[in-house]
Amino acid sequence: MTTYKDAGVDVAAGDAAIDRIRATVQDTYTPGVLADIGAFGACFAPDLEGMEAPVLVSSIDGVGTKLKVAARMGRYDTVGRDLVNHCVNDIAVCGARPLFFLDYYGVGTLDPDTAEAVVQGFATACSANGCALVGGEMAEMPDVYGEDDFDLVGSIVGVVDKAALLQGEAVRPGDVLLGLPATGLHTNGYTLARTVLFEAYDVDDRPPALEGASVGEALLRVHRSYLPAIQALLHDDLAQGLAHITGGGLPGNLARILPAGCAAAVDYEAWTRPPLFSLIQEQGAVPEADMRRTFNLGVGLVAVVRPEAVEAATSCLAGAGVPDAVRIGRVVSDASSDASEAPD
Amino acid sequence: MTTYKDAGVDVAAGDAAIDRIRATVQDTYTPGVLADIGAFGACFAPDLEGMEAPVLVSSIDGVGTKLKVAARMGRYDTVGRDLVNHCVNDIAVCGARPLFFLDYYGVGTLDPDTAEAVVQGFATACSANGCALVGGEMAEMPDVYGEDDFDLVGSIVGVVDKAALLQGEAVRPGDVLLGLPATGLHTNGYTLARTVLFEAYDVDDRPPALEGASVGEALLRVHRSYLPAIQALLHDDLAQGLAHITGGGLPGNLARILPAGCAAAVDYEAWTRPPLFSLIQEQGAVPEADMRRTFNLGVGLVAVVRPEAVEAATSCLAGAGVPDAVRIGRVVSDASSDASEAPD
Repeated sequence: MTTYKDAGVDVAAGDAAIDRIRATVQDTYTPGVLADIGAFGACFAPDLEGMEAPVLVSSIDGVGTKLKVAARMGRYDTVGRDLVNHCVNDIAVCGARPLFFLDYYGVGTLDPDTAEAVVQGFATACSANGCALVGGEMAEMPDVYGEDDFDLVGSIVGVVDKAALLQGEAVRPGDVLLGLPATGLHTNGYTLARTVLFEAYDVDDRPPALEGASVGEALLRVHRSYLPAIQALLHDDLAQGLAHITGGGLPGNLARILPAGCAAAVDYEAWTRPPLFSLIQEQGAVPEADMRRTFNLGVGLVAVVRPEAVEAATSCLAGAGVPDAVRIGRVVSDASSDASEAPD
Repeated sequence: MTTYKDAGVDVAAGDAAIDRIRATVQDTYTPGVLADIGAFGACFAPDLEGMEAPVLVSSIDGVGTKLKVAARMGRYDTVGRDLVNHCVNDIAVCGARPLFFLDYYGVGTLDPDTAEAVVQGFATACSANGCALVGGEMAEMPDVYGEDDFDLVGSIVGVVDKAALLQGEAVRPGDVLLGLPATGLHTNGYTLARTVLFEAYDVDDRPPALEGASVGEALLRVHRSYLPAIQALLHDDLAQGLAHITGGGLPGNLARILPAGCAAAVDYEAWTRPPLFSLIQEQGAVPEADMRRTFNLGVGLVAVVRPEAVEAATSCLAGAGVPDAVRIGRVVSDASSDASEAPD
């Protein structure tokens, strides 16, 4: 690995790009970053003050073919933010606060302007999430990637005291599912969405259904970070479980946090589905079941809340910048329903 | 991210592959792995017993175009080991012991047999290094990768007490450079090596220079893990600095651990260069300077040792399975030499 603080990276073009964004990367440094040491690895001294049994929570992920939309738009400053926010959400729903992030950028032929925009995106989102961008690797592999093709991979590490690990085991029938709005597709379902939409539209087309946005703009909206909302809920002890809605949609991801004997009864009529999803569904004649399993449908995070805590949670979320959380269903006994059915 | 302990992954074919290697992945689990919790992130409780100020040391890396050699050989069980060992070495030279590893596998069209072999390689090397394989992501992206193309990315996290962080600041002129043999190219210089060798040979050719090995076999030799050797040296407090020799070769990587005022004087005649490097150099008429900057030339790790500790270090290394460490040069004052010159 080459850490951004190093004098050089393996790839000369990457070198130039990194020189240009070095200051931005350094702006992400939190007090834990040991910036002067660790030539081969990135060194981070976590603040474990008050923790009895620190648990490291980690995740690795890519952006999928949202990259192809970015390339088609010639706009590279958002995909890095998508990836950071995706990773942040994945560990935040476990109760962890992010410590540091590392990125990998594999590309056919490295273009310094593109690289700068991409890494700038990583840095911007890392700063916003209080997460240090401690290292990265740029690999130029013309035999693996096409001329303009590239892939991005991000890896995150956070920490939580074991007693505060959120695993959903306290979830029980009767709990309420609060849905937090997504900005768009986030980072899932792009293969289907692109297939359907680019058959009918170019990125710059503005179908009336999208209310002024171009297809490209709507598809490229940045994956939202729910970190402030999650931290506010956890601080006030208001969430029994949290699900990040990614591939697999609501049914697939809610199932990951429900204890045995519980199922999610989602009322898919409870919120207004953003027009982008309806456009994809109509344009591609996509069956409703496929829509539910592929897309977040406008709900990017679900908080499982006790019925008596719904009001407090709603107001807590409003205070954390999410005034529009919606009650989208409830937890039921496993026998009475399954995750793909609406409640009575 | 999808952790391997989950019931499902996003990609159906990956699912099948993971079902087949689930037991192997679980065999990598060390006591820190919290396998029953953390649906969205991977949870690991590090043993911090006796540490005053734990420092997390992390790295992210790829295998580069060694992947293309693997594909040409149709042999996929070694590249995962290359990547794990590369990452392990990068944090071990900072003094860290590995805790956990995460992998990313981006591919055009996922083949379950290939995926199984790749992940098996990750798992085998993780087990050998006492490092848990806690999570991974498989992404099938036919628009980004060609049919048979794929990329692998690995991310590792280790820990070391701050007082034991090795950063080379105690290195001083007069110290001896002990070189530990590499198995081959490890994971660097494959673009040059492939260009040169595949112009003259097929993977199955056995040029006499390779002493019985085929070109493919020689190129695919697994990146060596120096973890046992490093831990033995550090346990006995015998190394002032350690450099993992990757891209940039001996000059590039030694420079990363030398304090101001110090330079490395490497005697390139001090060890027998393995025949693979000579074959590349002759076949491609590669200038010696390029060879030194591109390849490890048979030295995969350098330990900086006090002159009076050379004997103890050599015998310590022999006890840790490296009987063939070689004195390859010494540390000199910056004014008297530079890293690319041989000593007087």
